[in-house]
Amino acid sequence: MFVKMGLASWNLQIDRATKVFDAFSDEELYTPVAPGKNRIIYLYGHLATYHDALKETLGLGKWDKPQYAAIFLQNPDNVEADLPSVAELKTYWQTVHAELNELFVNLPAADWFKRHNAMTDEDFEKDPLRNRLSVVLSRANHVAYHIGQIKLVKTS
Amino acid sequence: MFVKMGLASWNLQIDRATKVFDAFSDEELYTPVAPGKNRIIYLYGHLATYHDALKETLGLGKWDKPQYAAIFLQNPDNVEADLPSVAELKTYWQTVHAELNELFVNLPAADWFKRHNAMTDEDFEKDPLRNRLSVVLSRANHVAYHIGQIKLVKTS
Repeated sequence: MFVKMGLASWNLQIDRATKVFDAFSDEELYTPVAPGKNRIIYLYGHLATYHDALKETLGLGKWDKPQYAAIFLQNPDNVEADLPSVAELKTYWQTVHAELNELFVNLPAADWFKRHNAMTDEDFEKDPLRNRLSVVLSRANHVAYHIGQIKLVKTS
Repeated sequence: MFVKMGLASWNLQIDRATKVFDAFSDEELYTPVAPGKNRIIYLYGHLATYHDALKETLGLGKWDKPQYAAIFLQNPDNVEADLPSVAELKTYWQTVHAELNELFVNLPAADWFKRHNAMTDEDFEKDPLRNRLSVVLSRANHVAYHIGQIKLVKTS
């Protein structure tokens, strides 16, 4: 039951983000969310890459495109950066979230309450609330954080 | 355990928001998050009022200041609006979240999975995932959504 609730919270944010990104034309995706701030396309790649990495964080799969980490995770947006095309990012977004969905629906409920790979056994003993499901809840909040920024951009 | 995880997610966002708001001077709180968008102080009142109303939504308590709904929930920010002072909003923020915390820690685990007041018995039968705890998860995402916007404002 709680796993279903946690996944519902995740899915709600991903569905919402998908709709928000899809509402922009390819050109509009290059708009910054506010003057001098990240462009929408950067946040598109940022969330997709972070969620690609999530498979490894949860110990459930492999990171498809670790080469994107330098562009979308380790560095802020930069107009000089050689970004993947919008078409590539759209495919990437869909693939990553389809993979995660497949992994999530097939994970036995008990496994959600196990330690994830970003923490040690010792830390987990001290704080068993920081399990796989709590990582997904935290990532859902992270998606909402960036949707809030993107929603500041007016679409015509 | 599930309840603790959900509340941890909520508390994390509230603690983060509290720190974010407290980092601004009284004057800085009147800065819009982006040109022509809501001012930080509006979002301060917006979240506090929404969470004040949450006590009634959850069927756990009474709304302290329903008179704030017109300013902070039913209308967007407006420089002509007669906002409460920063000092009043700080007290309100602290009071509302202290009250919620008190209610949350004392609610028996089973009661978290009961219907909340914003839905009918019929709807709840169809979708028991939409219980009190799921409302709190959703409100945590809503907090993250606005923190993302506020973090666009540079502090000196």
